Amino acid sequence: MGRESMSDDAMPDPAQDPPPFYRRHVFCCVNERPAGHPRGCCLEKGSPRLRNYMKARAKELGLDDVRINASGCLDRCELGPTMVIYPEGVWYTYRTPEDVDEILRVHVIQGGRVKRLMLHPEDGTPAA
Amino acid sequence: MGRESMSDDAMPDPAQDPPPFYRRHVFCCVNERPAGHPRGCCLEKGSPRLRNYMKARAKELGLDDVRINASGCLDRCELGPTMVIYPEGVWYTYRTPEDVDEILRVHVIQGGRVKRLMLHPEDGTPAA
Repeated sequence: MGRESMSDDAMPDPAQDPPPFYRRHVFCCVNERPAGHPRGCCLEKGSPRLRNYMKARAKELGLDDVRINASGCLDRCELGPTMVIYPEGVWYTYRTPEDVDEILRVHVIQGGRVKRLMLHPEDGTPAA
Repeated sequence: MGRESMSDDAMPDPAQDPPPFYRRHVFCCVNERPAGHPRGCCLEKGSPRLRNYMKARAKELGLDDVRINASGCLDRCELGPTMVIYPEGVWYTYRTPEDVDEILRVHVIQGGRVKRLMLHPEDGTPAA
């Protein structure tokens, strides 16, 4: 029923999707919550400064097909600052410029993973 | 050389990535440029209102495994308002609540594509 009632426009055919506009698309949460909120927020943990650093470093490295975006609340506040890298859908927590450098070098450029900083779906408390 | 010099942590093995945290992750550009900027901006075309509508509708529809985020500049300003849906990496331009409803119904819920609103990498001018 559902399928038959869909128009031609709506037929899912992901194999025919356009090629990616960005090879890797990074979203860094820069959301701010009121001071004292029990969940905390990525902004109070310094995410805007770290995201700006990541964006500048990506430019210096000539990563023209990569975009480092700021985003609203990614809703994993307790683990922040958090970022997610698509199309992989891999999440990281990060605290320092050195963390950002490692994510850029190992994940964004080399296609690897920085396991010590990766988040998993079941993570509900701050990473060690 | 490159591979041998990578640590165990860095060995790429995307098949072992954690499962997705969100089934679909939507980013709606809400960037603002100064009035009169030749590229325009998504904010002046009403994207914050449309993104808030999309977020509210997703909640009403019970789409608990979908996140509708605001983002900074996605750098396709002339085509705005723009959004990108991951992990597919499919881009849309949209102008009305009806556009948003169609993207939610056809793409986010049914997994199809709203071809009349889709952007392609070569698009450099506003969609017809």
